[in-house]
Amino acid sequence: MHKRLFIPGPTEVRPEILEELKKPMIGHRSKGFSNLLMEVTPKVKKLFYTEDYAFLSTSASTGIMEGAVRNCVKKSCLCCVCGAFSDRWEKIASANGKETEKIEVDWGKGISADMVDDKLKKGDFDALLFVFNETSTGVMNPLYEIAEVMKNYPDVMFLVDAVSALAGVKIEVDKLGIDVCLAGVQKCVALPPGLTLFSVSKKAMERAKEIENRGYYFDFLVFKKYFDDKQQTPTTPIITLIYGLNKQMDDMLKEGLDNRFERHKKMADYTREWANKNFELFAEKGFESNTLTAIKNTKGISVAKLNEELGKKGATISNGYGKLKEKTFRIAHMGDITLDEIKELLSWIDEIISTM
Amino acid sequence: MHKRLFIPGPTEVRPEILEELKKPMIGHRSKGFSNLLMEVTPKVKKLFYTEDYAFLSTSASTGIMEGAVRNCVKKSCLCCVCGAFSDRWEKIASANGKETEKIEVDWGKGISADMVDDKLKKGDFDALLFVFNETSTGVMNPLYEIAEVMKNYPDVMFLVDAVSALAGVKIEVDKLGIDVCLAGVQKCVALPPGLTLFSVSKKAMERAKEIENRGYYFDFLVFKKYFDDKQQTPTTPIITLIYGLNKQMDDMLKEGLDNRFERHKKMADYTREWANKNFELFAEKGFESNTLTAIKNTKGISVAKLNEELGKKGATISNGYGKLKEKTFRIAHMGDITLDEIKELLSWIDEIISTM
Repeated sequence: MHKRLFIPGPTEVRPEILEELKKPMIGHRSKGFSNLLMEVTPKVKKLFYTEDYAFLSTSASTGIMEGAVRNCVKKSCLCCVCGAFSDRWEKIASANGKETEKIEVDWGKGISADMVDDKLKKGDFDALLFVFNETSTGVMNPLYEIAEVMKNYPDVMFLVDAVSALAGVKIEVDKLGIDVCLAGVQKCVALPPGLTLFSVSKKAMERAKEIENRGYYFDFLVFKKYFDDKQQTPTTPIITLIYGLNKQMDDMLKEGLDNRFERHKKMADYTREWANKNFELFAEKGFESNTLTAIKNTKGISVAKLNEELGKKGATISNGYGKLKEKTFRIAHMGDITLDEIKELLSWIDEIISTM
Repeated sequence: MHKRLFIPGPTEVRPEILEELKKPMIGHRSKGFSNLLMEVTPKVKKLFYTEDYAFLSTSASTGIMEGAVRNCVKKSCLCCVCGAFSDRWEKIASANGKETEKIEVDWGKGISADMVDDKLKKGDFDALLFVFNETSTGVMNPLYEIAEVMKNYPDVMFLVDAVSALAGVKIEVDKLGIDVCLAGVQKCVALPPGLTLFSVSKKAMERAKEIENRGYYFDFLVFKKYFDDKQQTPTTPIITLIYGLNKQMDDMLKEGLDNRFERHKKMADYTREWANKNFELFAEKGFESNTLTAIKNTKGISVAKLNEELGKKGATISNGYGKLKEKTFRIAHMGDITLDEIKELLSWIDEIISTM
């Protein structure tokens, strides 16, 4: 039996989207593919609320996390670390020969605008590496407040990992002055994994020109050149998922982006209320994520056992991440999941817990 | 109407393989995914004829061309350049801060073992960058002869781009002493694009340890760690294509790899004979590819018009690459295409040309 995914990626993909994947192949240097790319790109730009470039990378999000560093960091960057994925971005920057400095808070805590301002005042950084929604802890950091701070540091590139947030929460890239915003499609976009969407500001494009050793596969200037000159991707793209993305973008725009964000908010509110009644939230107050709720296992239940029982009903949630295994569990309310499905899931959990 | 693809990638994908892509999503950190990865990997190792590591990268081949350079080249590499893709590999090495030296021949010519030996004797290189089958010119370089030469230079990593050859021609990685062999699945493997298969020798793993600034996304040691410790991929993998790969590998092994190579040889022989009768081969004698035939347009026909007419019959071939546009055209006989389909295609071309 298939278990419906309430995990923070990959999320459940609707059957009609999976159907799109099996369209016959076309050449990626053909007019047909260029037409597809030029049809889907403006829709993706709407999702990012940007008039600048939006690109499709055939890779996991991690690839563009690396790309953002290689294209935008000359020497050193400031990394906001509040969980496993933000910690890994710092490691990626180091692995690419960049100097890094951290703002680090305990897992479950958020990064405040003041913390960022304090560090930027004192240091000399080329970029801020900022994870909007930390998937390991269910913490959503205050993007809009931090964006305000960033406006005082125009030379510091604002690099935003929106992996588990894009298409679930409004991210107005141009208005916020985000230089690179990136997200894989297997979270709130609700496609299978393999494709990463990212926006690049004019400022980031200029920065890239100043940096040698950008590599090739994730070189933003190469993406720009192929898009501008040929309406193509630099390397062979994942055509099946671009078929899927084109339909999924239509469906999202038909739902209405604001409605989509509101649906995510409602699912988050419902899940939090349930969690507060039965357990405790793991995220610091004011930093709770709208796409994912991490719950402290205050009852000391076996999360593995809970998930096993849920499996019999045809659903699966996530255990705590890494060191938080069994200490927390995570319920993703992202993508095409509905409030009714969340209600059903939580009633199943109630039922299972009552027998544990 | 769908046009059957006789182009050098993406190649035609059978409907039953496309069906596999739409299986429901599973978590990539689940036992289910580990089982899938451990099921498919031994089959991929058979394709590479290796007992060492074989990995799956969620990227185009270009990504692992970059990865091979970052993991295996400390300072400088020797690049065998005989067309657009081998030329690009040299550029990728440069873009990653490596020193490069070229063996360069005119497009249509091949790289001989002597040329490689002469250069290696004189220089101090960390690696040889060797494109087995140059997709832009239809030249297949003498892999087995060059492998013999490479045995005299054990410190020079033997990096082989087998993009348009793997699964169409036998490549015995261990026997040949190939340190990294890579190929996207959208050529002779006959899957949609988005996934690259690659092998890594023990020697290459040791070399990687000596090199800093390997990055993260294509770091071979990270691939090894996740595979050994968790039976997982380091980053979110392209699950849909791995479903497809698992079935396609079964089908390939059922066909028999030697039978598959023989089928490619027969299609190549037939196409060459036809080309020699009607036009001329572009590849130097002795360097003709078994997966792709590039044909000199000695009759001065309009290749664009030919392809347009072929389109009406439901097929498409490739024009010449880059500067060879209209001067050559290319017929790919790779993947799951049959000799009968090649015969039908060539009879259509005969018919169209007779009216031009």
